[in-house]
Amino acid sequence: MGILLKSVELNGQQTDIHIEGNTINRIVPADCCDVAHDGATLIDGRRKAIIPGFVNMHTHAAMTLFRGFGDDMPLMRWLEEKIWPNEAKLTDEDVYWGARLACVEMLRSGTTTFFDMYHHLDATAQAVEESGLRAVLSEACFDHFKPELTERRKKDMAQRFKKEATYSERIRYALGPHAIYTVSGELLRWTADFAAEHDVSIHTHLSETESEVRQCVERFGTTPVRYLHRLGVLSPRMVLAHVLYVDDEEIRILADSGAKVVHNPASNMKLGSGYQFQYTAMREAGIPVAIGTDGCSSSNNLDMVEAMKLASLLGKSWRKDPEVLTCHEVFDAATRSGADMLGIPAGRIEEGCLADICLIDLNMPAFTPNHDFISNLVFAANGSCVDTVICNGRVVMRDKKVQGEDEIMEQAANAALKFK
Amino acid sequence: MGILLKSVELNGQQTDIHIEGNTINRIVPADCCDVAHDGATLIDGRRKAIIPGFVNMHTHAAMTLFRGFGDDMPLMRWLEEKIWPNEAKLTDEDVYWGARLACVEMLRSGTTTFFDMYHHLDATAQAVEESGLRAVLSEACFDHFKPELTERRKKDMAQRFKKEATYSERIRYALGPHAIYTVSGELLRWTADFAAEHDVSIHTHLSETESEVRQCVERFGTTPVRYLHRLGVLSPRMVLAHVLYVDDEEIRILADSGAKVVHNPASNMKLGSGYQFQYTAMREAGIPVAIGTDGCSSSNNLDMVEAMKLASLLGKSWRKDPEVLTCHEVFDAATRSGADMLGIPAGRIEEGCLADICLIDLNMPAFTPNHDFISNLVFAANGSCVDTVICNGRVVMRDKKVQGEDEIMEQAANAALKFK
Repeated sequence: MGILLKSVELNGQQTDIHIEGNTINRIVPADCCDVAHDGATLIDGRRKAIIPGFVNMHTHAAMTLFRGFGDDMPLMRWLEEKIWPNEAKLTDEDVYWGARLACVEMLRSGTTTFFDMYHHLDATAQAVEESGLRAVLSEACFDHFKPELTERRKKDMAQRFKKEATYSERIRYALGPHAIYTVSGELLRWTADFAAEHDVSIHTHLSETESEVRQCVERFGTTPVRYLHRLGVLSPRMVLAHVLYVDDEEIRILADSGAKVVHNPASNMKLGSGYQFQYTAMREAGIPVAIGTDGCSSSNNLDMVEAMKLASLLGKSWRKDPEVLTCHEVFDAATRSGADMLGIPAGRIEEGCLADICLIDLNMPAFTPNHDFISNLVFAANGSCVDTVICNGRVVMRDKKVQGEDEIMEQAANAALKFK
Repeated sequence: MGILLKSVELNGQQTDIHIEGNTINRIVPADCCDVAHDGATLIDGRRKAIIPGFVNMHTHAAMTLFRGFGDDMPLMRWLEEKIWPNEAKLTDEDVYWGARLACVEMLRSGTTTFFDMYHHLDATAQAVEESGLRAVLSEACFDHFKPELTERRKKDMAQRFKKEATYSERIRYALGPHAIYTVSGELLRWTADFAAEHDVSIHTHLSETESEVRQCVERFGTTPVRYLHRLGVLSPRMVLAHVLYVDDEEIRILADSGAKVVHNPASNMKLGSGYQFQYTAMREAGIPVAIGTDGCSSSNNLDMVEAMKLASLLGKSWRKDPEVLTCHEVFDAATRSGADMLGIPAGRIEEGCLADICLIDLNMPAFTPNHDFISNLVFAANGSCVDTVICNGRVVMRDKKVQGEDEIMEQAANAALKFK
């Protein structure tokens, strides 16, 4: 029973891998009769390399609908003219199709788990459920410093959390206070307490732009990381997207708190937010760092292979140092770091781990010659190298095609027609 | 006769395009009976958009063999330990297969013309000839400031130029003095005079790293652009790769001279050369700017779609301005600017231009929804979106596959096995 991957490349060696249920059961050198499991579905792995599925640690899945809708514009004009008025028109069905499209795109580029923040969470959950991926979903939460909204949001989040039990094992819930400039200190504190009591992750944006830092200093008298520290809300449950502007002391505060950081190079670059992400200093301080694509409205795709390359290239360029952010470091950040942050036993090809894996097509110019597979994957390839995806032990993509993708693309395109 | 592209998307309109010989003959709205050419090869263009083929304005094609061979290393150690000792082992046959692989990779990602600098020029020319692309090829030329080598190189270049007549119409020759730190002022002056007399392009590297600038000041008492200006070698025939370190006066000198600049974002980032390419200031001064990938040893692929995205994202990020380097600007830089620099009537979809074109597969998540095709191409897609390539009026790729690509990849991989 299960799935038998015959003769896949793992660390340059021909390997047979048996998957039983949702788990990697056995890993042995190729043609070892030990894993000839009767009745297993056979997948021919020759000329394919196996890697763990990518973990996209910050996105807004349904924003695929906004791909290319207002580029090259200043942030506030873009939000006010393009994004917010059209987001207000989105129905559950629109978000469902936007999230289905996101799932197709993620599978085609090798992502098996994503950490989401958006509206209409149930619609995204349904899309994830049907697409076969794994996700931790948060509902974007704002109280705009209005006490009556603060109380309502507490109830919303508590109710949402109760509903988690109704989802499948592939879907978990996280709290999603949007950012320090849209969420009150009171609600942030409640979120941190609730998360501690129920052991839930918190997904938020922090220190994304210079103007956010400036406004934080004006409003709260200190910088974003220090503000969260003063509120007492930093903890290992806190996953902070962006964190582009921090000084050495803030890096120490984050490290001491156990908080996690997600680097989103494409989004930071395209929005002109900045470039000096302190990858090396954070890692040296012991802060876990993962990689995200952000939403398609700003990034404009969900390709984690490209995100790895951008993270490495951007870090090397602004540091003017070709030795930092090696291909192996960013590969780990895009796989095991994300899985570890979410407490999911995935992100590695090891017996006993979840069978969330990709087979990479080596029959491409990007893998020719193949002096170093991880270098080729990070620096030469893009998401189109992913041939097969297995998530939770189930084959969800074969031969670079996701079942039903043509209808999903058509429905998502139709949902976006009403934007003005 | 010729080729008839039926119902391709051009600027969002269904269009029929007739190609006669090597030229775009007619462009009319779809289903106009006017272009029902008897005997023309029909290509169904539905769900495909037409764009001009990309012009990769700086590469070292056969360095595909060095893809992923020593990444994340400091420049000089990498050159001395990895590149130079192995380049010395290359035969004509190795370079032929490396260049064939480069041609496969370029066609698969939509490049129809490239500007090359490498060794074993005849081997590269043969590869280009057989692959069906267009190229302007220069032989990397060094005299290391040794007068006896200077004289020999003059003869080499003059002989090479004579040989140009033996190549097909798709191949032209350019002079390739490598850089100011490997080529004497005397040889640079001779090159400029020869180029003026015979109307040939000159391909060189300039101002790529801070240490090059520092050494130039130490050796010649001035900065790289001023040094070339003092030698009197700047002209509209001069194509300068990189030009990462220039001040305002140098930008004016370049603009006044008519010299051209090629931006290579992936290479500059990955080698840690720097990030502050003065795209906007150069364009405002009137300097033509095109885009290149550089060689696969440093970039590590030949994907011009990715190069456009990197150019735009890098410029926006270090300027902290989302409005600069729009997708439309970088698309022009990657197509018509390059063609114009080489004096080739291509880089646009216009009647009378060379039929160097690509059809883009719109049936992909990157083009869903399709609010803005050029935005999706630059920011969401990668080279894998190219479905069909026509160069010089001949179909050289269909259905994302290049004829013979499997054998070419195998031979190139074998050629690289001897590297140590």
